[in-house]
Formats: sequence, structure tokens, C-alpha cells
Amino acid sequence: MESDPKVMTIAVLGGTGREGSGLVLRWAQSGYRVLIGSRDQARAAQKADELNAVIGEDVIQGLDNVGAAREADLVVLSVPYAAHEDILRSVADAMQGKILVDVTVPIQPPAIRTVYVPEGKSASLEAQSLLGDGVRVVAAFHNVSSSHLPDLDHSINCDVLVCGDDADAKSEVFQLVEAIAGMRAVDAGPLANAVAVEALTPVLMYINKRYKVAGAGIRITGLE
Amino acid sequence: MESDPKVMTIAVLGGTGREGSGLVLRWAQSGYRVLIGSRDQARAAQKADELNAVIGEDVIQGLDNVGAAREADLVVLSVPYAAHEDILRSVADAMQGKILVDVTVPIQPPAIRTVYVPEGKSASLEAQSLLGDGVRVVAAFHNVSSSHLPDLDHSINCDVLVCGDDADAKSEVFQLVEAIAGMRAVDAGPLANAVAVEALTPVLMYINKRYKVAGAGIRITGLE
Repeated sequence: MESDPKVMTIAVLGGTGREGSGLVLRWAQSGYRVLIGSRDQARAAQKADELNAVIGEDVIQGLDNVGAAREADLVVLSVPYAAHEDILRSVADAMQGKILVDVTVPIQPPAIRTVYVPEGKSASLEAQSLLGDGVRVVAAFHNVSSSHLPDLDHSINCDVLVCGDDADAKSEVFQLVEAIAGMRAVDAGPLANAVAVEALTPVLMYINKRYKVAGAGIRITGLE
Repeated sequence: MESDPKVMTIAVLGGTGREGSGLVLRWAQSGYRVLIGSRDQARAAQKADELNAVIGEDVIQGLDNVGAAREADLVVLSVPYAAHEDILRSVADAMQGKILVDVTVPIQPPAIRTVYVPEGKSASLEAQSLLGDGVRVVAAFHNVSSSHLPDLDHSINCDVLVCGDDADAKSEVFQLVEAIAGMRAVDAGPLANAVAVEALTPVLMYINKRYKVAGAGIRITGLE
């Protein structure tokens, strides 16, 4: 696979999961080079083959988490909260100088429809604290249901609230949001506001079950 | 003022404030009898006169907080977080057996656009803990901007996420939501999920400032 130096390379750690692989597919379709990171390199490579076949191109590659983080310009983390800290520790060195887009939602299975406030208040704040000032953490994509991501003809009816303390990093993430059909990026403030965005996800999962729907999302009103 | 025994009486503690008085006006317009509660009974009476004049009826009455809580069937609390605990202590006895609809957002001025997680994780959870099992606490209305409430011709473009542990109490609050033009009630789960709903308010205040708009709100997508 040759890489175009002008095209950003995105690593999605947890890219074999439902949410992660959906994002991989959407970004690959939009022309990004995408690396799937997994603890199991073979699984990552298999998922990459599968997704390349869906879009009929060869722009997705499967690596282990550290390799993916090292090779990427920007790293997206979409893993179960129970694995969050360990994976961050394993890639911390490879991440220095880069942007981490944290999609992780702090829930405690089996209570996946009840808000859980972790010790550091939010997964993203915990990530920032663990990675230090050399990594700019941005929180985004938590409220996008994985249900419709694999269906490339389905426009995603959801705003993406983007939180972070670095304006340039937020701008880069805005571009990733708006590369996916239907999504609109909304600047939701400093990284401290990720508490609200993360906590909204178990609420949306509750709403999905309560109203028997598959992909509840949110839109901010009053912006136009 | 004569009261129709079939019409529910709502007390709004903090009903002289912007959010509280807007809700008072909307419910009075919808045919509810509404009591404004305040620490200062004279201020409550003055605000009641003012709002009765707006709707051209005499259905709003101003009382002190305890008197309003005692006389009401259902009590709404819309106060600055700094006053939350003290007011709850003062009305705890008068509240027993009733529903408390807590609209309070835990923020720490001057940082009103940054999420603040209080010791009890949410104002509503703190209220439930303080009032005990004799009061059914429901969290609602946090994300409705006060900007457009006073303009009775303005339909409110916002869903109201309703959290609580008692299904019947949530049903009663659903009726209060849908009495106001434009609002749609969405069952957002147990009271623990109020963390998300409360935390969304400083995010919306950030969005108002960032995008130079007055009344950003939210809609849940994917429900129809």
C-alpha cells in the first residue's frame, strides 16, 4: 500500500469493535488512510481485509495498538472502558505530540443504560491526565450509534459534540466529523465538558431500549 | 382566588427567577394553578401580579417557599445550585408524599459554561438523598433555555429528558412537559441518569456563547 503524504493517517484503536469499525469504514470511504489497532494484530488484519472489501479499495491496514498509534498522525480510541487505562498506558510513548480522539464511554456492565461517573469524572479527562501535556486529547463521537455506521448509504442523523482544550486539535477533529455524511460537529467547550457528552451515551442506550429504536442520537437546536 | 379541585396546583420554588418564572407563565397559560415560591414572599407576590397581567387571568399566587410547597400537589425547584440544599432542608417536611421536579443545574459561578460534578454526582440525586423515600424526585427541564419562555407565541424547540425512579411520577411530569408548546418529553431513565441531563446545560450555555445564539436546546433523533 502506497501512502499519499498529503492524506492524514488515522489509527482507530479498538477498530475491530462495532463503533470503531464503523468509523474506520466511514473515514476510509472519505479518502483517509486508516489503521485498525487491536491487541490482536491478526484480528485487526482480518477486519481490515473485510472492510477493504466493502469499499473496494485497499486503504485500511490492521496493526497492533502500539504499531497503529506510532504510524498514525491522529489516534482515535474506541474501547470498552474496562480496557481504557491499560491501552492508554501501552500507547502513551507512541502518542506523544499527537492528537487523541477519545470515544470511550465510562459504563459499568451490565448497567450499560445507567450513567456511571468514573473517578476522574470522565474517560477523556482520565486519558489527558494519564498521557500528559504532550498529547492533545479531544472528546468526540460518543453519541453516534454504531447501528447505522456500517451501512454506507445511511446518513447519520446526529450532531457530534466536540470537547477539548486545544482549538487547533478541535479543528482537526471537526474535519473528521464532517467527512461523515449527516454528522455535524458542534464545539461543546473544554475537555471538562466531556462529562456531559460521555454521560449522554448510556441515556441514549436507555432511550433505544425504552422506545424500541436502534440508533437514537441528538441534534442541537437553535443554531441556525 | 378560587381553586378548581380537578386542576393540579404546581409550586415553582425559585419562581421569581428567569427559568422559574418562564415555566410559571407557560403552565398558568395551560390552565394549571401555579404558586410562586420565594424566600421573600413580597417578591413572589409582585412577580405573580406581573405574570397574571401577562396572561390576563388570576391563576398565579406568590407565597414563601414553605407555604408554596405545602399548598401544592407537585413542587418544581428551579434555584441556583448554591441555594439548593438550604431550600430543600426548609421544605423537606412540607414535601413528604409529593413529587419534586428538580430543574437545578450544579454549576459553580463564574464558570457557568463548564460542567461541574457535585459531591453527590447530580443535584437531583442530592435532593433525593436529602428528602428521603417519602418524596419522589424527578429531574426535568434543565435543557430548556429561559430565553424564549416568556414569549408565549414562541414554540420551544427542545426535548425534555425526564429522569426518575418512579414510573407514575415520571408520567405526571410528562404531562407538565407536553402542556408547553413545542416541548416533547423523552423518558431518559433512572434518576442516576440526571447526571447527563444536568451536565448538558453548561454545554448548551457554552454553545450559546460560542455560536452567538440565545436558546440552544436539544432534540433526540431516531425516535420516529
